[in-house]
Amino acid sequence: MPAMSSAPGLRPFAVASDLAGFDTERDLGFPGTFPFTRGIQPTMYRGRLWTMRQYAGFGTAAESNQRYRYLLSQGVSGLSVAFDLPTQIGYDSDAPLAAGEVGRVGVAIDSVEDMALLFDGIPLDRVSTSMTINATAIILLALYIAVARRQGVAPKQLAGTVQNDILKEYVARGTYIYPPAHSLRIVTDIFAFCEREVPQWNTISISGYHIREAGSTAVQEVAFTFANAIAYVQAAVDAGLDVNALGQRLSFFFNAHNDFLEEVAKFRAARRLWARLMRDRFGATSPRAQQLRFHTQTAGSTLAAQQPDNNIVRVAVQAMAAVLGGTQSLHTNGRDEALALPTEEAARIALRTQQIIAMETGVTNTVDPLAGSYEVERRTNEIERAARELLDRIDALGGTLAAIDAGYIQRQIQESAYRAQVAVDAGEAVVVGVNRYQTDEPSRVEVFQLDPEVERQQVERVREVRRSRDQAACQASLAAVESAARGRDNLVPAIIAAVEARATVGEVADTLRRVFGEHRETGLDV
Amino acid sequence: MPAMSSAPGLRPFAVASDLAGFDTERDLGFPGTFPFTRGIQPTMYRGRLWTMRQYAGFGTAAESNQRYRYLLSQGVSGLSVAFDLPTQIGYDSDAPLAAGEVGRVGVAIDSVEDMALLFDGIPLDRVSTSMTINATAIILLALYIAVARRQGVAPKQLAGTVQNDILKEYVARGTYIYPPAHSLRIVTDIFAFCEREVPQWNTISISGYHIREAGSTAVQEVAFTFANAIAYVQAAVDAGLDVNALGQRLSFFFNAHNDFLEEVAKFRAARRLWARLMRDRFGATSPRAQQLRFHTQTAGSTLAAQQPDNNIVRVAVQAMAAVLGGTQSLHTNGRDEALALPTEEAARIALRTQQIIAMETGVTNTVDPLAGSYEVERRTNEIERAARELLDRIDALGGTLAAIDAGYIQRQIQESAYRAQVAVDAGEAVVVGVNRYQTDEPSRVEVFQLDPEVERQQVERVREVRRSRDQAACQASLAAVESAARGRDNLVPAIIAAVEARATVGEVADTLRRVFGEHRETGLDV
Repeated sequence: MPAMSSAPGLRPFAVASDLAGFDTERDLGFPGTFPFTRGIQPTMYRGRLWTMRQYAGFGTAAESNQRYRYLLSQGVSGLSVAFDLPTQIGYDSDAPLAAGEVGRVGVAIDSVEDMALLFDGIPLDRVSTSMTINATAIILLALYIAVARRQGVAPKQLAGTVQNDILKEYVARGTYIYPPAHSLRIVTDIFAFCEREVPQWNTISISGYHIREAGSTAVQEVAFTFANAIAYVQAAVDAGLDVNALGQRLSFFFNAHNDFLEEVAKFRAARRLWARLMRDRFGATSPRAQQLRFHTQTAGSTLAAQQPDNNIVRVAVQAMAAVLGGTQSLHTNGRDEALALPTEEAARIALRTQQIIAMETGVTNTVDPLAGSYEVERRTNEIERAARELLDRIDALGGTLAAIDAGYIQRQIQESAYRAQVAVDAGEAVVVGVNRYQTDEPSRVEVFQLDPEVERQQVERVREVRRSRDQAACQASLAAVESAARGRDNLVPAIIAAVEARATVGEVADTLRRVFGEHRETGLDV
Repeated sequence: MPAMSSAPGLRPFAVASDLAGFDTERDLGFPGTFPFTRGIQPTMYRGRLWTMRQYAGFGTAAESNQRYRYLLSQGVSGLSVAFDLPTQIGYDSDAPLAAGEVGRVGVAIDSVEDMALLFDGIPLDRVSTSMTINATAIILLALYIAVARRQGVAPKQLAGTVQNDILKEYVARGTYIYPPAHSLRIVTDIFAFCEREVPQWNTISISGYHIREAGSTAVQEVAFTFANAIAYVQAAVDAGLDVNALGQRLSFFFNAHNDFLEEVAKFRAARRLWARLMRDRFGATSPRAQQLRFHTQTAGSTLAAQQPDNNIVRVAVQAMAAVLGGTQSLHTNGRDEALALPTEEAARIALRTQQIIAMETGVTNTVDPLAGSYEVERRTNEIERAARELLDRIDALGGTLAAIDAGYIQRQIQESAYRAQVAVDAGEAVVVGVNRYQTDEPSRVEVFQLDPEVERQQVERVREVRRSRDQAACQASLAAVESAARGRDNLVPAIIAAVEARATVGEVADTLRRVFGEHRETGLDV
């Protein structure tokens, strides 16, 4: 007999009177109306399903291209590119710091030639692409635009998202390059450029995902994501951008974690809180600028290496929470992601999980079907309240940048992560197959093996690009990037010109390093 | 882009005003209070988790015993025995009709020697056992009691369930032997015997599961299950049993099908409707006799042979619905059950699915967490209303037996099954991997292979039992069964004596056949 479950802080059941003071008109509205608690569209998935967007990328551009084509053939409705660590922090594959990391956690992209191969045979006017890239977001966006042009696709036709959420790198993820103030200038340049030239592009995906993966609670995930979002919006407004315009191009990225009811409530609370912040704090009046649009990924940190098939169950339940919470886009993790990058088979099962939820479970037939539930509404109220309290605290500390500088946000996350780990170690929090129901039977699940030749091939490839290009033109283009960086011109056009002249990712990043310097971790171990 | 989902009959979203006339005190109550919409216990899974009871059985008693021991070692909290077809319809393994079926869909049990082996090393005073057996329920219950005695365990210490729901065999499942009126006498004899001698035993598990598997809708599943239940309760009351006593020993068995919200609503509606029927129709005043206690199994008919890992997803979502609906006991299907009996690995993943839901998703922390949801309450109301309408129709036809005789229930189920099949054939209902997202990649999932020696071994075993027993004592015990059957004495004691004298299942069943005759299908092809 499994142990009695218990969560000391929670009441055994919720009743109507738990929602005293709850005003359905003010706090719920209808789907598609302020404060968008019930969803940003009036018909939600009855009108259009969420985008099934599976994050993928490994090895060389050619290998990743093959995986994207496979995923498209299996029914994904959007691409999502994982880059390797050197690409994320602006080093070419032949840089000393890149050794051992080339193509490992994502695809290695050094130049426009790699990027062209990555999307070979994939018409960029007919697919939407999300790129998980932050410190070098401006370079990868430039590469995407350059490849689109080669395909004869104008920037105005491009749809997709660039993560471009550098603040959470300082608090949770670690792949920053430049100091925060310079990073914010890059972010704002992307906003401004895209508003004119790539109007369908989501210029940022403000990410709670990594904050949660680093160990935060659900409330902290919402609060710290919005703290970062407030900083971006404020920086853009300060740079003279219109909040009603830029607000429409913001997107968010949340985690779908284990606690099913809490997660559904979290998504609903986040929508309401963001709408109120945009209206009340920034004066946004356009409904599109008040709407929280978000991608969701199931929680990688909840997956276990032991008994990998169990992860299919975890992912299915987490994905259900995301859908019942009204996500616009979803990545479901592969069962083997605690062991390695997902195999093709694991990626297919993960996609089938979304398709089954979408087409077999009936949950798409009703918009926000848990609305009115005493428990879900109670938790929605509670998450909004507690997240607001954290935002007030950050304001009191002088705002997001000051709170990051002081290590406040990092410390809050670390404390939550520590508490969660203690609960697992003590067996109070059960992880099936890990601290309970272990088995010594070997798993039959095939594990992905990266081709050990990738690094050597990629090093040769980038050297060949450097050898074969017009050196003078390339150097001139990099000089123009440096000059734009020292001045106030928008960086994006200069970087597009540089990557079209076959300057590499590392070279462009180094050019900016010379101007902006590099950020060093201060004090706290994040 | 996947197709727009649509369900023409459904409104896009539910709001508070959809619940006009809904009275929370009358229609919901609190958990543990009439009409038990919110659950039969005040604390539900916070006090005690549902019983994780995995249905299993194949081949010989020795093989099945090994599987039970494995499942117990992996954390099941109750056993559930699957019997092969010959055992279900009262033929020994060496009967001509048994050829090719011995040990195939469940374990072959011919005599008390097999039953003793089945529970070898499993103390029957410390486990609860459910047996899916109907036409021969009385014989298998007698065998269980006989084995318990051999173990030194008194009948009063036994906990478990015998399905014993013969009426649904006529309408949906087909493993009947005797005509309905005689079958009802057997059912009532089991009720009466257990009330005195095996007081912790659930004397019937009135099953909507097979009605649903045969193709009924959710509403029909509830209505036809309760139509059968009404017939059993009426027969028992007519036989002089006390409704407040017998009502406490009734249990139910439902299906957890694909439509997540509908299924949660179905379980809640069923609890409310049954409480009202017991109070208003039968005058039950004991809360325990008004409470609907039920086991749930995920829907085998929704599983696909193609891409078997997808079934892990289906089972997880269905199991979530059962738990959110407040089931007392749950079987989760193996991913390979559309191909064969589950392998040990598949059975373990299925059990892990329950353990993850119980211990990782947090849904056990709150009783009936979807209460108050406009959509879930609206559907709960609608299912209760529509099921009542069907019950009224059955009453108008002269009651359950008359409705079965007239083929009304069978026809209703067939029409629903036909409509569902047409929707799949036309592609309106998507089955992922079957009529959409097919792939020609071979599955890596191992498929269970039954040992081809089983039948030969089992035939030898039953012949050896017949050779080695005291023939005179055995014949005398069968004569006593026949005499009880011709008279009005309770059949159970005579059958226990017969199986203890090593009369076989087939011999006892044949003795009753001589007295009661056999039922032949009339007209309708069920």
